[in-house]
Amino acid sequence: MAERIILGIDPGTTVMGFGLISVDKGQMKLIQLNELQLSKYSDHYLKLKLIFERTIELIDNYHPDEIAIEAPFFGKNVQSMLKLGRAQGVAMAAGLSRDIPITEYSPKKIKMAITGNGNASKEQVAKMLQSLLRFKELPRNLDSTDGLAAAVCHFFNSGKAQQQKQYTGWAAFVAQNPKKVK
Amino acid sequence: MAERIILGIDPGTTVMGFGLISVDKGQMKLIQLNELQLSKYSDHYLKLKLIFERTIELIDNYHPDEIAIEAPFFGKNVQSMLKLGRAQGVAMAAGLSRDIPITEYSPKKIKMAITGNGNASKEQVAKMLQSLLRFKELPRNLDSTDGLAAAVCHFFNSGKAQQQKQYTGWAAFVAQNPKKVK
Repeated sequence: MAERIILGIDPGTTVMGFGLISVDKGQMKLIQLNELQLSKYSDHYLKLKLIFERTIELIDNYHPDEIAIEAPFFGKNVQSMLKLGRAQGVAMAAGLSRDIPITEYSPKKIKMAITGNGNASKEQVAKMLQSLLRFKELPRNLDSTDGLAAAVCHFFNSGKAQQQKQYTGWAAFVAQNPKKVK
Repeated sequence: MAERIILGIDPGTTVMGFGLISVDKGQMKLIQLNELQLSKYSDHYLKLKLIFERTIELIDNYHPDEIAIEAPFFGKNVQSMLKLGRAQGVAMAAGLSRDIPITEYSPKKIKMAITGNGNASKEQVAKMLQSLLRFKELPRNLDSTDGLAAAVCHFFNSGKAQQQKQYTGWAAFVAQNPKKVK
């Protein structure tokens, strides 16, 4: 069994990209890379319901330990931000209702974590993900890799956070070297 | 048993006002008028979780047939709209997960429906609600009446909608007067 399973989501009212990775002995493995196409539906509530239901379904089928969400903090206008906030809200409600910790990352931070360049193109991110997770074909719609990218970014970041927690500060030094301090 | 129960919600990340009314033979009755104070919590996800959980609790305890939401469509800036969208999203997720139809009303439309004036003050709306629903004391925090106001607005509006459906147009005339038309 994997040590950790991370669900990454990029919620939106046109398409929701999502990806699942498992982490075992520090190694990532791809479980799923997919998207929920919402552009064919015109009813706003139906879209929100589908986002909620798919997220619940992913949680109940794969039991992720953590959820990572791609969350832009800036948008064109207040209308689009309200819509985006709702899409994020219903996806978050799914995670919160199952008590799964959620972490948000800005698109720039995700690109940076994966390619080393905060302004990388979708193609660059997708190709790096392909090489990291060894999947054969890139999906037709590159939007679907955004959810997976959030999951991988979360893995990289939680690794760094743990490292920092382990090796930073006097309290950590004391905790790790009890014999050297009296 | 009441013909209809309407849950009205005014979701926000500082306070969520909510109210429940029952409708029986065209008469409204107050079931509950309350608020969920969120300003004391600093964690954004905890706030969203509490909004979701309280909405689910209200649905499971009172079995509303419809949900009415006060939803401003304009805001100060994109940041506040994203937050508001998330608060609305988690409240909507609760309703959508229980298959309850949701209707949104702008603050102006709610004020108009209740007082006849789209620019009425909170006090005017609260006092009109008090007289319509015969409750003794106004709540200390008038924000909590915004949820109830949405429920009452929905009642007035669905009444009008039904009336229009019943008495407008040739098809309706035919349906209602089958003997007068051959």
